[in-house]
Amino acid sequence: MGYHYAAPLRDMRFVIERVLRAPAAWLVCTAWDDLDGDTAAAVLEEVARFASDVLQPLNAPGDRAGCQLQNGEVHTPEGFKQAYTAFVQGGWPALPCSPDWGGQGLPLLVDAALREMLSACNHAWNMYPDLLHGAYETLKAHASPELQERYLRGVVSGEILAAMALTEPQAGSDLGQLSTRALPQPDGSLRISGSKIFISGADHDLTEQVVHLVLCRLHGDDGPSIPGTKGISLALVPKWLPDGKRNTWVVDSLEHKMGIHGSATCALRYEGATGWLVGQPHRGLAAMFLMMNSARLHVGLQGLGHQEMATQNALRYAQERVQMKAPIHQHPAMRHTLLRLQVQTETQRVIAYRAALALDMAAQHPDATQRQQAGQLAALLTPVVKALLTDSGFESASAALQVFGGYGYVHEYGIEQTLRDSRIAMVYEGTNEIQAIDLVQRKLLADGGAALTLLLAEWAAEADACSAHASLADFESALRQQMHLVRQGMAALQAASAADAQAPLRLAQDVMAGLGHALSGWALAASARATIDEPDTTWAQAKLQRLRYGLQWLLPQAQVHWQRVCDANLVLPDIDTPA
Amino acid sequence: MGYHYAAPLRDMRFVIERVLRAPAAWLVCTAWDDLDGDTAAAVLEEVARFASDVLQPLNAPGDRAGCQLQNGEVHTPEGFKQAYTAFVQGGWPALPCSPDWGGQGLPLLVDAALREMLSACNHAWNMYPDLLHGAYETLKAHASPELQERYLRGVVSGEILAAMALTEPQAGSDLGQLSTRALPQPDGSLRISGSKIFISGADHDLTEQVVHLVLCRLHGDDGPSIPGTKGISLALVPKWLPDGKRNTWVVDSLEHKMGIHGSATCALRYEGATGWLVGQPHRGLAAMFLMMNSARLHVGLQGLGHQEMATQNALRYAQERVQMKAPIHQHPAMRHTLLRLQVQTETQRVIAYRAALALDMAAQHPDATQRQQAGQLAALLTPVVKALLTDSGFESASAALQVFGGYGYVHEYGIEQTLRDSRIAMVYEGTNEIQAIDLVQRKLLADGGAALTLLLAEWAAEADACSAHASLADFESALRQQMHLVRQGMAALQAASAADAQAPLRLAQDVMAGLGHALSGWALAASARATIDEPDTTWAQAKLQRLRYGLQWLLPQAQVHWQRVCDANLVLPDIDTPA
Repeated sequence: MGYHYAAPLRDMRFVIERVLRAPAAWLVCTAWDDLDGDTAAAVLEEVARFASDVLQPLNAPGDRAGCQLQNGEVHTPEGFKQAYTAFVQGGWPALPCSPDWGGQGLPLLVDAALREMLSACNHAWNMYPDLLHGAYETLKAHASPELQERYLRGVVSGEILAAMALTEPQAGSDLGQLSTRALPQPDGSLRISGSKIFISGADHDLTEQVVHLVLCRLHGDDGPSIPGTKGISLALVPKWLPDGKRNTWVVDSLEHKMGIHGSATCALRYEGATGWLVGQPHRGLAAMFLMMNSARLHVGLQGLGHQEMATQNALRYAQERVQMKAPIHQHPAMRHTLLRLQVQTETQRVIAYRAALALDMAAQHPDATQRQQAGQLAALLTPVVKALLTDSGFESASAALQVFGGYGYVHEYGIEQTLRDSRIAMVYEGTNEIQAIDLVQRKLLADGGAALTLLLAEWAAEADACSAHASLADFESALRQQMHLVRQGMAALQAASAADAQAPLRLAQDVMAGLGHALSGWALAASARATIDEPDTTWAQAKLQRLRYGLQWLLPQAQVHWQRVCDANLVLPDIDTPA
Repeated sequence: MGYHYAAPLRDMRFVIERVLRAPAAWLVCTAWDDLDGDTAAAVLEEVARFASDVLQPLNAPGDRAGCQLQNGEVHTPEGFKQAYTAFVQGGWPALPCSPDWGGQGLPLLVDAALREMLSACNHAWNMYPDLLHGAYETLKAHASPELQERYLRGVVSGEILAAMALTEPQAGSDLGQLSTRALPQPDGSLRISGSKIFISGADHDLTEQVVHLVLCRLHGDDGPSIPGTKGISLALVPKWLPDGKRNTWVVDSLEHKMGIHGSATCALRYEGATGWLVGQPHRGLAAMFLMMNSARLHVGLQGLGHQEMATQNALRYAQERVQMKAPIHQHPAMRHTLLRLQVQTETQRVIAYRAALALDMAAQHPDATQRQQAGQLAALLTPVVKALLTDSGFESASAALQVFGGYGYVHEYGIEQTLRDSRIAMVYEGTNEIQAIDLVQRKLLADGGAALTLLLAEWAAEADACSAHASLADFESALRQQMHLVRQGMAALQAASAADAQAPLRLAQDVMAGLGHALSGWALAASARATIDEPDTTWAQAKLQRLRYGLQWLLPQAQVHWQRVCDANLVLPDIDTPA
């Protein structure tokens, strides 16, 4: 009856090779022209073993034990350190990093599948290495050669772990209110003072060295150089200084949270701590967004991992549990739940991996236009992946809990932990409401719809390809219907935005949901088409049945969202008078 | 920053007096012809003080401490016993019970408002007295005069607490698999043996005496008299026997749950325990349904309480928390969330209280036809109230958590406990999937739509009444639109059911959701009309604005559900081949 994880390697490979045809894309990139599907699959098989054999057994005990702060030191749950050491020895942190810095140089797409598995098996543990890639990218792009030389190899190998120190009590989503100050020193270093909260992995016992990437405000003797968001800089602040001394920051407390108990969420104080500027003065937000974008894709993959975990365990339980003389997976209400869980997981895997492939092409495609367009696509997809997949991760955990009935509510069956752990992903790295605003304002309206046009062209190509197969007529027409809704909705959004600058904010959630459905429509069609050449016809038929379930029962929800976007008469009242 | 509760007495009174016009209904019933709105309101004010001053402060500490099993005895969190003693001294358990047995004889409608407040402030504590009313009704209707004489007054006063011992490991929703056996003894008692799980409040330290109402199977010397659901009987099994001896049942363990930690969820063993038959042999299920119906309304009210708690705390936080130079309740995304929370809570209060009023009229209306029709309405509304309000309770807690951002995920802000506590209500007393099946099969199809016709007539009367006010034209037309969808959907459901007996099971969830929206449409219209005579026009205007938000942004969702019901081409595949 326990909670288990069987990595969905079969489906991952289907998505990577058959739906997204990534090996063909790799072939045109010099960095990956010797990478093929088999090699990628072999890597993922090893990750799967590590995730299910090492991480998953630590998940429930880690939830019970939590992290402890003793004499100013953070202790992680038993086994976390050993697992991390094995992870480093396996070379996993370096998977998608440049060989120039000791990395394996594999695509982010392969890394995405790795992230999905780690999150599924142990979200709390995964919090520690999950921020490494953002730190790597930030240091690689912005740090001075000296800082790079000192820290970058350790970050790539995972021997140094990293934390992002952004949030302050008064500055959550509103970074303009940041008050941590950095006084430039004659030797070029900074002296940093201030308080941060909600800092995941600011301290722990997994590695000796930890580096913080700290948002702060450069000060002269007479106060901050520049107030507001424009005056924010980024600093690297290590735990141990080059001279071997402990830096002057302290963990004040650990948060008591609903879930991810094994992840140390620290409130900390910098007391004249030594750090160094990363990037240009006052350009901290630009550097931070590089970290955040990587983190947002990872958070989306956490949602996907939770969804996969919830789905396969609910399915297993439903096949074992007999009520009214039949295993409950035969009962219609349970079939609805299980099919929805399965098809959502499968389509969202396609969407998330598509975003990772876009990042890979943005980095490595030989053609500059292709790189630029792939970058636009990745930017557009990132907030959708973050919000859509984390909403679904939580909702799916709840739907799966329902399959377990009363057993779902008790610890032993595991699913209630998935529900609790998954909830944070809707909040951190920018709440899902902020993702919707980012999507609408910066990704859809700011470029006049250019990125969306690329996406629509991709969908049109998919619809055209489906039209060659009579058996896929329903997928083709559903996709074209979704495209129509998107075009109509986008026109309405632009008109509303022209008439009233607040309109995009009012409609952001519905645009996000609508676009999510359209992406699902594309993923359903692309997956259905990919089943046609699938040699394992039993597997293909079952998959096609699930895809059709999604088509018939789930996609129509899109209408309601676009209706709201298109209805100029809807009023969103103020809340001035409390009830 | 703490979690607080201000009882929504203003809105409760609005619903009871102006929307449902309950005082006029009371006037025609002999039992309540001297009850008026002021008296009921005065009772609720006292309950509100008890709930917010006594129960709410125990809620978070009770969550941390949980229940403990020591030497076979269950200990509840500190303060629970004192609070319960005060509750009994206040005479609250007896509120809706017959004066014949020491009760106050007040309507269930008033008791519903009481339940809402207790659940909002401390769901875990409320689990102990929440089952009393079902036990009272069952003993009053089915127990022998001797058993009534021995236990009923104590149950009414609350000096005896009651537990429902239904579930067994192999028999969750499937009661046919029950195996607890009862051997009739020469003295007329039963000797009961077997194991039960998930028994809330089977043992505790709030009262000396506890009585279990146990589903069991009468045995002769050679085995069960009748197998299957037809052979189930109900027995009363006390903790202390009339001769002062401790009965022979033991608590094996307490469940470790996601929430309601202060409620003792027991696994227990009857080891030849002494009990007595309640009602006829082999007619246990009928007696049980009486308990369950009462319990289902109460569980719905738990969802309502959670929703109210989540809503008012999110609203308070949003008004205090400043980001981007404005309190966050001014940001469009937060306005959506807060308005949805408010209007859902308000409309669902109308629906739940309507069900309670129907139960009151079924019991006390002088006219037999009215009593019978009110009973039909109550039976139809009960599964909707249970499922709709508990789904919303959980979803609203999650939406409210999102308003708190990162703070929502940590213990101190209280909302994460509401999220965890609220989740159980979707599962127990029949999962929400079972409620949907009950609704469709037993409440909509079995009587050929007779109960629904009563509801539609009530809605038509409301729409007609709205038509007298030009300012309510949008409410009237939205309600008529919902009625149209219901009629169309019901016809489709009947046709589908005639063609395929499995069809109602496939469509049950969408019928439930569709009917829930229609009830909301009625509640919105009825509330809007009630604001017209409201002397406090500022309050009325703000309320009307929220109701219009519900009308414009929430009701259109109904279409998607009824579309599915009406689309005969949708296929629900089997899940034969695991992914």
